[in-house]
Amino acid sequence: MRTLEWDYEKNHLNMIDQRRLPGEFRIVTLTDYRQVIAAIKDMVVRGAPAIGASAAFGLALAAQQSSAKTIDHLRKDINLAAKELQATRPTAVNLTWALGRILAFADRYEGDVQGLQQAILLEAQKIADEDVIINKRMAEHGATLINDGDTIIHHCNTGALATVDWGTALGVIRTAFEQGKRLHVLVDETRPRLQGARLTAWELSQYGIPYEIICDNAAGYFLSTGKVNKVLFGGDRMAANGDVANKIGTYMLALAAHENDVPVYTVVPTSTVDLSIAHGGLIPIEERPEEEVLNLQVEGKLVFPKGAKARNPAFDVTPSRLLTAIVTEKGIVYPPFDKNLAQVCK
Amino acid sequence: MRTLEWDYEKNHLNMIDQRRLPGEFRIVTLTDYRQVIAAIKDMVVRGAPAIGASAAFGLALAAQQSSAKTIDHLRKDINLAAKELQATRPTAVNLTWALGRILAFADRYEGDVQGLQQAILLEAQKIADEDVIINKRMAEHGATLINDGDTIIHHCNTGALATVDWGTALGVIRTAFEQGKRLHVLVDETRPRLQGARLTAWELSQYGIPYEIICDNAAGYFLSTGKVNKVLFGGDRMAANGDVANKIGTYMLALAAHENDVPVYTVVPTSTVDLSIAHGGLIPIEERPEEEVLNLQVEGKLVFPKGAKARNPAFDVTPSRLLTAIVTEKGIVYPPFDKNLAQVCK
Repeated sequence: MRTLEWDYEKNHLNMIDQRRLPGEFRIVTLTDYRQVIAAIKDMVVRGAPAIGASAAFGLALAAQQSSAKTIDHLRKDINLAAKELQATRPTAVNLTWALGRILAFADRYEGDVQGLQQAILLEAQKIADEDVIINKRMAEHGATLINDGDTIIHHCNTGALATVDWGTALGVIRTAFEQGKRLHVLVDETRPRLQGARLTAWELSQYGIPYEIICDNAAGYFLSTGKVNKVLFGGDRMAANGDVANKIGTYMLALAAHENDVPVYTVVPTSTVDLSIAHGGLIPIEERPEEEVLNLQVEGKLVFPKGAKARNPAFDVTPSRLLTAIVTEKGIVYPPFDKNLAQVCK
Repeated sequence: MRTLEWDYEKNHLNMIDQRRLPGEFRIVTLTDYRQVIAAIKDMVVRGAPAIGASAAFGLALAAQQSSAKTIDHLRKDINLAAKELQATRPTAVNLTWALGRILAFADRYEGDVQGLQQAILLEAQKIADEDVIINKRMAEHGATLINDGDTIIHHCNTGALATVDWGTALGVIRTAFEQGKRLHVLVDETRPRLQGARLTAWELSQYGIPYEIICDNAAGYFLSTGKVNKVLFGGDRMAANGDVANKIGTYMLALAAHENDVPVYTVVPTSTVDLSIAHGGLIPIEERPEEEVLNLQVEGKLVFPKGAKARNPAFDVTPSRLLTAIVTEKGIVYPPFDKNLAQVCK
């Protein structure tokens, strides 16, 4: 199944509970948009494109839940729900983009309350379906950059689970592998929530792609050995100049790759590009609860001292000068990024 | 107590079991040099200077265990034990240095078997005592670099526990704090064995120094905010040109600091400098068992997929061009490091 899917018989949203992977594959059922809010906040669903699609279906639920008798009242209700959905996670822009698309669609819609409720669901479905098409296009473009025999370092999870299906950076790897290229992936475990170790490793094992997990802080070592050919990751928000906010640790990885002349590719749909933001310094960086850092155990025992405090920024910004190219569904974008991004995002 | 201490009443070596901290403070008793070998391999004791002193006491145990009737035979026995001790961990040079010092001492020694057995113990004790004196000297020198109000990122554990007492980089922080400077330490958790989160956080809380734990991959974010004033770490082996092998992750940290114009200091006794090695590329890098990466649990459950493979290099090399200065017991060494290191190590 897809990461998230509308059940048209039962009229609710199903999604894979990503917090339980790889130990347990469990589907959760969401019948209320407030459950979607909780699912995004608690990272039942994560990954910028998957969050965007979830929020769109969240608005479909909000529309269904509304007791509005007039279309204006319904628009007000979904606007309120959109504000709450928007507040769940500040960094990724796909959330804003998907909500904005549904709201604009609702504004344009001419018809009755029931018609709009139905139409919002179809628009959300369209966002989800387009995500898969866009990902496959990005994968085709990106796969041209991958050579037979490449060893690739990959950060966080950018696979099927980070999207509706197929994935962004991991989608590129998957497509290149399906084309017959022999690949080896060094999977950054991606502290604190270990999306690399939990999700990317799990996906790669499903696809039969050889991989080894590494601690995030070991990427520099491997890059310095000369045996790594590419670094790939996704993005949560890209500024107009190509600076990209992505999962914490991306910046240090990109720096180490750049230092060792290893090409760095970010794979993002154009819905991740926020032309309203000039550079990465203006992207809001979410800081998440310290428990996400402190809850580690080894052999059943917590390893951190009692009373320890932690900081937990969830993203960092990689300056575009560290990027070799940006892979989008509209093609591969090379420097100068400001000019070339503006063109593909027209 | 010190990290390791000879018990002169019972004639054996005691050391703190660092694998159990911070949850449990347990002393282990070593009566056989092969127990010292196991303790170093399993990281009951770790930290380059502490390993050096442990190995020296290990030779004292080997000498006591020897059934040699002649001094030449005793020398042979401790030479064999030294080879086994040497093979425990390849990267840190203090081990080689301490073993070499004891063996050279034994070669020079004139007297009987019992006298040499006793003299080796006293020489090992001298290495341990000198370590504390050296660390306090480094701390005095290093503290001159620290300003009131500094926020410092620190990697791994370089405190009392990494040495016989007081510590190297953390000793600098401790001395600066005792001088009345207000400090805040961002503690790299230091995957995979989490020496930062387990040991450095524990030590800092004992000393009353304010700190917060961060994931290693978040250091770049904090460095890019402009709110970090210094980066400090120790070293396991320094080449003649100042390149330094240290705990995995140091290289990426130093890169990110350098990129953001934050001064980078490594704090190493001159026994860590290996003038026989021209540059860091020649330092052997230990790769440790993958279980150290894969054994993480959250809420009692393993988080990594079953059958997952991992790579676990324990060290990386930071090129000396990323270092602002090297703090030794003989003073602070600035570039050009090759010339100036040769001078202090004379």
